[in-house]
Amino acid sequence: MAEVFSWSQRVYFHDTDAGGVVFHGNYLHFMEAARTEFLQSLGASVRELRESGEALFVVYKLDMNFIKPAYLHDSLRITASLDEVGRARLLFDQKIMRDGETLVAAKVHIASVDPRSLKPAALPGKLRDKALAAQQAR
Amino acid sequence: MAEVFSWSQRVYFHDTDAGGVVFHGNYLHFMEAARTEFLQSLGASVRELRESGEALFVVYKLDMNFIKPAYLHDSLRITASLDEVGRARLLFDQKIMRDGETLVAAKVHIASVDPRSLKPAALPGKLRDKALAAQQAR
Amino acid sequence: MAEVFSWSQRVYFHDTDAGGVVFHGNYLHFMEAARTEFLQSLGASVRELRESGEALFVVYKLDMNFIKPAYLHDSLRITASLDEVGRARLLFDQKIMRDGETLVAAKVHIASVDPRSLKPAALPGKLRDKALAAQQAR
Amino acid sequence: MAEVFSWSQRVYFHDTDAGGVVFHGNYLHFMEAARTEFLQSLGASVRELRESGEALFVVYKLDMNFIKPAYLHDSLRITASLDEVGRARLLFDQKIMRDGETLVAAKVHIASVDPRSLKPAALPGKLRDKALAAQQAR
Repeated sequence: MAEVFSWSQRVYFHDTDAGGVVFHGNYLHFMEAARTEFLQSLGASVRELRESGEALFVVYKLDMNFIKPAYLHDSLRITASLDEVGRARLLFDQKIMRDGETLVAAKVHIASVDPRSLKPAALPGKLRDKALAAQQAR
Repeated sequence: MAEVFSWSQRVYFHDTDAGGVVFHGNYLHFMEAARTEFLQSLGASVRELRESGEALFVVYKLDMNFIKPAYLHDSLRITASLDEVGRARLLFDQKIMRDGETLVAAKVHIASVDPRSLKPAALPGKLRDKALAAQQAR
Repeated sequence: MAEVFSWSQRVYFHDTDAGGVVFHGNYLHFMEAARTEFLQSLGASVRELRESGEALFVVYKLDMNFIKPAYLHDSLRITASLDEVGRARLLFDQKIMRDGETLVAAKVHIASVDPRSLKPAALPGKLRDKALAAQQAR
Repeated sequence: MAEVFSWSQRVYFHDTDAGGVVFHGNYLHFMEAARTEFLQSLGASVRELRESGEALFVVYKLDMNFIKPAYLHDSLRITASLDEVGRARLLFDQKIMRDGETLVAAKVHIASVDPRSLKPAALPGKLRDKALAAQQAR
């Protein structure tokens, strides 16, 4: 059984707010980075997919729970795994963790769209196969 | 019956991303501004509440639907109304609209915490009364 | 003599950092908004200029002095005036003020470029005339 | 002669704007990360310095030249080296590069301040020694 993909990130000042913690909207930056690197690890260059006009990934639904705050200079681990792989959409399960403890848990619903028209577009076949394999390897 | 509180905002470059639309995480900036101004309109200065040590408001749960994108230079209207007023929490219903059309719909769950300990703290009585009145006026 | 253009802005959590003050990079958001609204006040819709392919404005040089910090919930006034109006560039003088006191002072050098090629493009004649008039009215 | 410190960073959607390039203010995020990691590499934990009340680093002056734009998914290298090491300030020379080409060049003037009073505070002696050594090793 494969490990869940994870990405590391230190918290800098620009991620935090005057509450002394990471601003709630900025966790989305960490999660975007982790999803991008996860897709990259599956052999899908988000750059090439977009430039070739094959696919652009947009968030259309988001459910997040903020359990504990992350602080300046924390070293975080951000996970990304696939709950569902549709014809033109992906459902990611993501967690933001510090020392094994979950700080933020999210379900991120992604649609694959045509980069020009922004209309739904089927996931490229090769990526879909890799995504299905990654989903089943969990 | 009272009108729903709303706040206006133009979309600038710093709100958008290379997809040509507002970055999904940046809608949270617009919604934070609208909630702050809504509370201010109820007579609750978020500044005084924090500086006096009475209350700091933190997002602990978020459900968002991204229905249509907002574009650079769009004039948006961001609404904020109260679905629930608890002892130490508020549930906001928020919408981001353009020309009467809903682009983003969200439920934002806010906890009132002590600004120093970050532990739950009852809403100040006066704010709670105003919030209950605003909720019932919908 | 005309007044200097100014734009008002409250400081929200998403503008601040764990130092309790506005994150230095976020003052650029306030200044971008003020420049956009200033151009708009001169009758130049940055939206139409971009969509018609006439001009896109990009920052190519920036000099900033951070004199005093701005805090959460401060009400700021951001000014924008023109020091120079070139064939394909504008030099803005901008200040961020609180209660008549300058917190940040900046010189923002803007190039007018073709929205597609990103190569220098002469300022649209009508905008250049208005900009020259605004510069001389100072 | 020592190499200049550098830090790698991929460009994500949240870094870009509707011009298709990195938003000018977001280069400051990359530069902050590189400075933090550079100080960390000198044995100075910015976290410990702040928590112990020894020093907080704030930007008080900034000069930036934006030479060429960075695009979505670019792999950037961000350098940080010391031009000057004062009693209570540091002058950083920073560059943002792609494939050996300089996209952004900046001088970042940092003051060391007391984390509570925000008044100037001498650099901790150990950090100052390391910074001087790093400056001379260039």
